[in-house]
This record gives sequence, structure tokens and C-alpha cells, in this order.
Amino acid sequence: MFNYIPPIDDYRFLLTEVLGFDRAMADIGKEVDADLAAAVLEEAGRMCAERLHPLNRHGDEEGSRLVGDKVETPAGFAEAWRDFAAAGWASLSAAPEHGGQGLPFILQLWLDEMMAAANLSFGLFPGLTRGACEAIAAHADQALKATYLPPMVSGEWTGAMALTESGAGTDLALLKTKAVPQQDGSYQVTGQKIFISSGDHDFGGNIVHLVLARLPDAPAGVKGISLFLVPKFLPDADGGFTVRNALSVGALEKKMGIHAQPTCVMNYDGATGWLVGEANRGLAAMFTMMNAERLMVGIQGLGIAGAAYQQASGYAKERLQGRSADGARNPVAIIEHADVRRMLLNIRAFVEAGRALAGWTALQLDRAHHHPDASERARADALVALLTPVVKAGFTDFGFESAVQAQQVFGGHGYIREWGMEQYVRDARIAQIYEGTNGVQAMDLVGRKLPLADGAVVEGFFDLIAADLAAAEGLAIAERTREALALLRATTASLRGAGIDAAGAAAVDYLRFFALVAMGWMWTRMAVAAQETDSPLHEAKRAVADYFAARMLPQSQGLAASIASGEGSIMALAADAF
Amino acid sequence: MFNYIPPIDDYRFLLTEVLGFDRAMADIGKEVDADLAAAVLEEAGRMCAERLHPLNRHGDEEGSRLVGDKVETPAGFAEAWRDFAAAGWASLSAAPEHGGQGLPFILQLWLDEMMAAANLSFGLFPGLTRGACEAIAAHADQALKATYLPPMVSGEWTGAMALTESGAGTDLALLKTKAVPQQDGSYQVTGQKIFISSGDHDFGGNIVHLVLARLPDAPAGVKGISLFLVPKFLPDADGGFTVRNALSVGALEKKMGIHAQPTCVMNYDGATGWLVGEANRGLAAMFTMMNAERLMVGIQGLGIAGAAYQQASGYAKERLQGRSADGARNPVAIIEHADVRRMLLNIRAFVEAGRALAGWTALQLDRAHHHPDASERARADALVALLTPVVKAGFTDFGFESAVQAQQVFGGHGYIREWGMEQYVRDARIAQIYEGTNGVQAMDLVGRKLPLADGAVVEGFFDLIAADLAAAEGLAIAERTREALALLRATTASLRGAGIDAAGAAAVDYLRFFALVAMGWMWTRMAVAAQETDSPLHEAKRAVADYFAARMLPQSQGLAASIASGEGSIMALAADAF
Repeated sequence: MFNYIPPIDDYRFLLTEVLGFDRAMADIGKEVDADLAAAVLEEAGRMCAERLHPLNRHGDEEGSRLVGDKVETPAGFAEAWRDFAAAGWASLSAAPEHGGQGLPFILQLWLDEMMAAANLSFGLFPGLTRGACEAIAAHADQALKATYLPPMVSGEWTGAMALTESGAGTDLALLKTKAVPQQDGSYQVTGQKIFISSGDHDFGGNIVHLVLARLPDAPAGVKGISLFLVPKFLPDADGGFTVRNALSVGALEKKMGIHAQPTCVMNYDGATGWLVGEANRGLAAMFTMMNAERLMVGIQGLGIAGAAYQQASGYAKERLQGRSADGARNPVAIIEHADVRRMLLNIRAFVEAGRALAGWTALQLDRAHHHPDASERARADALVALLTPVVKAGFTDFGFESAVQAQQVFGGHGYIREWGMEQYVRDARIAQIYEGTNGVQAMDLVGRKLPLADGAVVEGFFDLIAADLAAAEGLAIAERTREALALLRATTASLRGAGIDAAGAAAVDYLRFFALVAMGWMWTRMAVAAQETDSPLHEAKRAVADYFAARMLPQSQGLAASIASGEGSIMALAADAF
Repeated sequence: MFNYIPPIDDYRFLLTEVLGFDRAMADIGKEVDADLAAAVLEEAGRMCAERLHPLNRHGDEEGSRLVGDKVETPAGFAEAWRDFAAAGWASLSAAPEHGGQGLPFILQLWLDEMMAAANLSFGLFPGLTRGACEAIAAHADQALKATYLPPMVSGEWTGAMALTESGAGTDLALLKTKAVPQQDGSYQVTGQKIFISSGDHDFGGNIVHLVLARLPDAPAGVKGISLFLVPKFLPDADGGFTVRNALSVGALEKKMGIHAQPTCVMNYDGATGWLVGEANRGLAAMFTMMNAERLMVGIQGLGIAGAAYQQASGYAKERLQGRSADGARNPVAIIEHADVRRMLLNIRAFVEAGRALAGWTALQLDRAHHHPDASERARADALVALLTPVVKAGFTDFGFESAVQAQQVFGGHGYIREWGMEQYVRDARIAQIYEGTNGVQAMDLVGRKLPLADGAVVEGFFDLIAADLAAAEGLAIAERTREALALLRATTASLRGAGIDAAGAAAVDYLRFFALVAMGWMWTRMAVAAQETDSPLHEAKRAVADYFAARMLPQSQGLAASIASGEGSIMALAADAF
């Protein structure tokens, strides 16, 4: 079993040499500099590497179990949660008015990366709690906020998001859970939800469910959905939370991976809840949660890929098999074999560019919230909206492929449980599915985000890229990215006004193409930053940038050609001929 | 739980309209026509669908277990094995002189497809037995053949291949197991082997291990490896096999998938064995097994993909979510959504072309064995050698990707065990690893197979394709395949004389490119055959051919560009910088 080594040097390189962190913080009036940020990340990394990572293998083997009507998480999880919260990691980026530390979101997102790398199942507990907090902070009334936010922000309580039903997944218009108003202003919520991460556990404290349901007089479809706060424990007369609410775990889902995470079938049997936000506007509140979650899910793919890379590259440097190019008689470490390097470089070129792009997006998110100039806030907000599906789907697709390639480096040893590589593959797979499947993300990008401001948002983003490429003339990565960007712009133009079938036919290929260009942009910025200095980190950045340009960006040619062929060949076959 | 429907109509279409089965059989003097072949496949399909498929989910849940020193397979497996053997399916393609039925290999390979689709773990028992039989038949002396082949061919006994050791996987030069000659002509074999599929079980009967080991005076490296036949039970004085040999199961590997298959750590503690073939020529005997196994493993990827397609397309026609392009209010089956169709068509375009290409290759294999003309035999043999790594690695890579895409069609339901989709993903993954990882296959293609006859074999294969394309002028699939073939020829030429690093850098991308062109060739042949008739099957063939041309073949552009960039960007980074 390997250790996990947090990528602190890379974070520091990005903060100081690539992303202009100090300037970005100054712009929004946050008193955090790169040194403080790196120190926070170092501490966070220690928590992930020393407390969470050692529980990961065991958590997979033992899994969460339903014992009677109680969920038991694997040994060590509850203690780790208490330590995690006590050290302040649950409240890192939450607003100070709710008890949070108000640190920039980039630190949160990179903490999320390290949590996913160390222990994805664990990381979902704070992740979902944060999403629930954001929805409550943005939409709930003052009384709900005052009651629920402080203990959730501190990590004393946790949150869960109860959206999906067995007949209503992607299509929430079909959901059936009911909420009936009571005389005291509360509601009685009744229905069954499935796939509820962190729906119950044994960490102690309350569990605050945010439940999508319909009011009795609600219109049909998504315009009749409301959001309700339904805590596991209701307040008693003394202000304690001791009264068991009418919600229960029907079953734990048996899953391919994230076995330590209790994914619940939840039954709400006239459970007491309160409306969050306006009646029939639950979808807006839900999207507040979802958008925050989607960036986190994207970085989960990246986190697992980074951890898998560490294990696979470590193994490749130790494992002796085969001969070297010079024909020496003794076996060489498999890192000498070109095909092993190719697999490792595929992973690394994604992870480091993705980490940079996630950091850039996180800085835009803080800018969207805190910049003094409203037009700058709006501009940043639109860029985050544009990039959210790219990060969610792009990073989790590349993340899963990375886990598979890292497993392949181990040969037969990758397939057996002992080395932990197959767990990465099983765990990484969920991130392509939950919080909106990657196909839905791609449709969001093509159908909703490209048309933002009549195309001006995406064009503005491309202009940003073009400006950085122009400043990097002569670098191979800049040249190749420039060619790919030109093709992406043409492809984007061709999708203007596309109908639902044309958009759907293009969407997944388009998102991957977009992600490749965005990563080429980040590799260009990193290569430029690395030009000046000759440290091992800087040398490696230049080499991996060259690899990305030579071996990964060319994928975009096939993607562009596939998109250009249109929807005809997809829609031709009659449904019953499938 | 879905049923599995054997693709008999597709087999019949291929036999009679695409592959010229009757003519091929006449060429080699086999008295089997397409009607008889289809009837055999129909019976085989019934066995797979009705006896093996119902055990698949349960086999995964229960798994094989080591109880004391005995392996217990999941409930129903031993009975199914006895029925399978009794019905003659174990001996289908074995030579009549060893008790086999001598049916053409195409039927064997398609039976293998259906077994993998129905129950991969089960299918490994007959598959490995067959490989062991082929090695014994080709290399063992008359006495060993007479003793061991008849009960192995009939399925009364089974076989296992014991090659890998913990320090020697891909690189067999490193293996340490010893064989010491005894006065009576036998050997005492001592060592530990890992990853031994079907190493032990509870089906009854003997288990015949073929074990790679070194003689005391053997030269170092692969030229000092010999092959030994080591049965679980040794002959007693009365000619029965009742004497327990000194081999034992050390442990069962805990694996990502194929849980029902007992993958053993085997200990040979001075076990009695006999030399198969010449001393120090064990590798040649092993490759006899391996080549047969590699085609089978390739078709395993295809079999799982086909089964996953059936489940996913069935689900997509039932599952209601989202709106159709015409904006109707009621939810539609997700088969109406372009992105769902795209995923399903990716799978189907691979499965049907792969099935055709496997059939074509199988016909060449029979031609290589049975054609009266020696030069025709040699020509066919070289084509099989060329295509073996393409089938093994190409089909298992596309097969795994297919299983993942089929799982994605199910959304969250794909991630939970209930629907069985995640089992396909876990099971399909092994086929990319065992019998030589797919990276090793790709190196075999580029490093050994392209140079065959100084390039004349691969050029001859491309000429075959070109001739069929010329006869299909005007069809989109033929045009697109022609373009891709031209690029592939140029890429092939560029790899002539490539060093080990250049070959290794290109290999995996090249193999995928090659597989795409070979599938384009088969789609062209199928589209031509389907032009004449308007049955639903023929209409679907034309539509899927168009899809393959428009949406899958374009991948080859990116692959060609990546290969053209050479090995520089892969080899630049120092090993310790990974």
C-alpha cells in the first residue's frame, strides 16, 4: 500500500507562477496571499494523507452497512469526521456570517481534490454538506439559516440532497414526492428517494435533508417542484434536536464502488419539513446546490487520477520486466518502456492541466461573488457557468480513463484488489454519473451555455485563450492549441441554433474537444511560466506540455470530424431497430 | 434481469451473405454448410442463454471460494459444466482423432462469443481446457496425448495454464519454477504460480496443469524455459487417476470481477510432471496455447459488449425521461435522445463489425490448418498471425469501452449491482490484461507482425481490403474506409524499421487505427451485402455502416497525427521525474 503525497509544489507553482493568485485576491479584497494559501493546503494535505487515505482500502472492503434501521460506516470514519470538522476543514470556504472561514474557493476545490485522491467516499460527506449549506444560505429564510447553518458549517451536523426518485432521475419533472402544508407553517413530506449519498450515518449530530417535492396545488412538470428542509431530528421544546422525524433508511444501494459511502434509499413518511425559497421554485434552489457540487465532482475525477498516477508511476519505477532499447541483458524498470510512459503521461498531462483549469475557474467563482464591480461579477459568473459542465464531465471522463490506464500499468496485479488500483476504477466511475450524467452535462454546455449572451460568453472565453496563445508564440503547445482553437471556434459556430437532435448528437464529442482546448490553454500558460527556470518541476512542465501538444491534442481532429457529420447517422435507425 | 438473446440471425447473415462460408468449407474439404452451422449455433445459443446466463449474476455475488484446501465454485456451476460437456460443447472444434467433432473454428469462436456474453467466468473453463489441449496435441509425445487428450476433449477433465509468477508476468525470462528430472523420465516441479485461471474447482475429474519451468541445466532467459504437464491426479497402478499430486491452491486471488472464476495461486511442491515438447523449447509450446487463447480473449470483449448492448438498448426503449425534439409534453423513451443513440450505436457498430472480422479470421485459421495447398495454408496462417493481436487487444479495448457506455445508458441504475451492468464493466476489464496485456499485443503487432515477410503480409492484407472497397464504390462507408486505409498504409510505412522506443510509442494508437480500418472493411462488406434486400436486418446494417463511417472512423485522424509525432515527447522526461 502506497502513501498519498499531496501535490503541494504544484499548487504553489500554480498560485504564484500561473494563476496570479495574489493579484486575484487583491482584486476582490481578500487578505490571503499565496504563502498563506500554500500553508493551508499543506495542512489540508496532511489531514488527507495521514487521516483519510489510510481508511480508504479498508473502507472499501468493509463498506457502510445497514444494521437494523441504523447505518454503520466503516471503522474509523466517524472519528475521522470529528477530527476533520474539529480542525476546521468543514468550514474552510463558508461565509464568515455563517461561521465559516471565508477562505477562497480555490483552496476548497483543491482540498476537494486531495480528499477525492485520499478517500472519495469520505469526501462526499463534507461535499454534500457544503452544497446543502449553499442552498440554505442562498434561499432559506432567516430563521432556517440561523438554526441550521452554524452547526452544518462547523461540521457538527451534515447535509444530504434528496432529489432522485426511481422514476425521476435526469427528468425531475416526473417526481412524485408530496409536501402538504400544515397549520404551523411546516409541511409534511411523503415519498421515496433513491441514490441519497450520506443519507444516514453514525457520525452523531443531525442530518439535514434537502428534499424536492410537490405541493398539492403545484403545476405539472418542473415548474411545480419545491425544496424542503427535512432534518433527521426535529427541535424539542428546549431547543435541543432530540425528536426523531419520520424519515428512515429503506435500504443501502449495493454499488460498484464508493462502498464506504452510505448511498441510501430514503423513505419520508409524513416527515416534517420547511420550505426553502419560494413555492414551485425548488429547481432554482437545487441548481444552487448542483452548480457547487458539479465543480466538486469534476475535481473528484481529477483527484482519483492524480492518486492513481502516483501509485502507477511508483510501481513502474520499481517493477522489473523486459529489456531496454539498447538491448541490455538485465531487465529494466517498466518506466523505460515507451508504452508505459505513454499511459502515465496521458494521466499526468490531464491531471496537471485540469488542476490549473480548476484553479482558474475557482478564482472566477470568487470573483463572481466578491468583485466590487458588478459587470466584472457578471462576467466571471458567466465564465463559471460555461466551464462548470466542462469541469464536471471532462474531468470525470478523463479521470475514469486515467484510473483505467493506471490500473493497466500494473498488468495482472492491477486487476486484483491487493494493490488498490481496481478500487480507483470502481470509485472513479460514479463521478461520470452522479450530479447529472456526463451526457446531460454535455447537453448543458451545447444547449444552454454556448448560447449565453448570444454566444458572447463562449467567444469571450476563446478570446482569453487566444490572447495567452499570442503571448506564447514559438512554443509547440501554443501552436498546436492555436490550431485546435481555430477548429473549435468553427465547430462552435456550426452548432449555433442547432436543434435538440443536432445538439445531442454533437454534445459529448464537443465537450471533450472543448476540454482538450482548455487544457491546451493551461499547458501553454504553464509552459510559459516554466520557460524561465530550470528546476525539475519546471523542466517536467515543459516536457509534459510537449507531450500534450504532440499526443493528446490531435484527438480534437477526429472529434471535429465526427461532430461535422451531423445527427443524420444517429437518428436514422428506427427506435425499435435498436 | 434481462434474458440474453443469441445473435443467430446475424451469424446466419454473415455465413451466407458476407463471409462465403459454404465456399470456404468446400475449399478445405469440410462437409459443413451454412444451414448446419446455423443449426449448431442455435443449439449452442440455447445452452448459453438458458443454462449459463441464469448463473451469471449469482456467480458474481457468490464467487468461487477456497474452503480448506478445496475450491468451491458457485452453486450451479458444476452441474452446468457436466451438462455442457455431455452435450458435446467442450469438444466442438477439437480434432476427431482426439475425440473432437472437428467442426470449423468459426463455430467455436462464435460459441466463445455467446459464452462470454452469457457468463464469462464459466466460459474460461472450456476455453483454457481447449488451449491446453492444443498445446498437448501439437507438442506432447504419443503417450501423453493418448492418456490426457480424450478426457480433456470430452470435458471429463479440464486444463489450466500455469505461466505467470509474481516476479515474471510479461517477461517470462524471469521465471524461477524448477523442474528436476527423475529416473523414470518424469520431473519434479517446484515453484509458485499466480493468476492461474481454473487452477482448481469442484467439477470432478482431473485438472491438467501445463506449467512453465526451468531444467537444472537450462540457459538463462526465455531459451531456458520448458513446458510440463502436471496433473492434479496421477495414474495409479490400475490405470485410474487417484493419486493426489503435490500441487495445491495457496489462495484465491481477490479480483475486480470474474468472481465465479477461481483464479488461483498454485503451489507445486515437487509435483510430478512430464515434459511437453523439447527441453528449453517451452515458449514455442506456450505460444500454441496463447495464440488460440488470444482470439478467444478478443471475442470475450465482443461477447460482453453484445450482451451489454442488448440490456442497454432494451432499457433505453423502456425508460421514460425527458422530452422529444418536437417538444411534446409527455416524457419519451430515452432511445429518442441523440446521445443515448450515439452510445448504443458505438457499441453496435463495434460488435457487428467485430463479429464479422472474428468470423473471417476464424475461416483463415481453418484454411491455415486444412487447405490442400501449402502456399494457401501459409498465406492464411500469416493473416491469422497478423490479426491475432488486433482481435485480442482491439476487441477487448472496444469491448470494455462498450460495457462502460452501456452502463452509462442506465444512469445511476447502471452503478448499482441490481441491473448487472457494473458486472459487465468489471468482468470485461480482465480481457484487456490477461493473455498478454493490450500494450504487449500492440507491440507484437508493430514489432513482429508488420515486419512479417518484409512487410508483404500486412500489405497483402491491405490489398484484400482495397479490392473489396473498389467493388463498393459510391457507398459512404467504402469511401471513408478508403481514406482511412490510405492513411494507415502511410503510417505503416513510416513505422518500417522503427526502433523499440518508436514502435512502443506508436503501438497502442496504431493497433486501434488498424482495428478501425479492419472494421470499416467489414462494414463495407456488410453494407454491400445488405444493399439488395429490404429486411429490417439489412436496413439496420446499412444504417449502422453509415454511423461507423461518419462517427467512428474519424478517430483514425487523431491517431495518425499522434503516431506521426514520434517517440520524442514520450521519452524526453527522465524516469525519476515521473
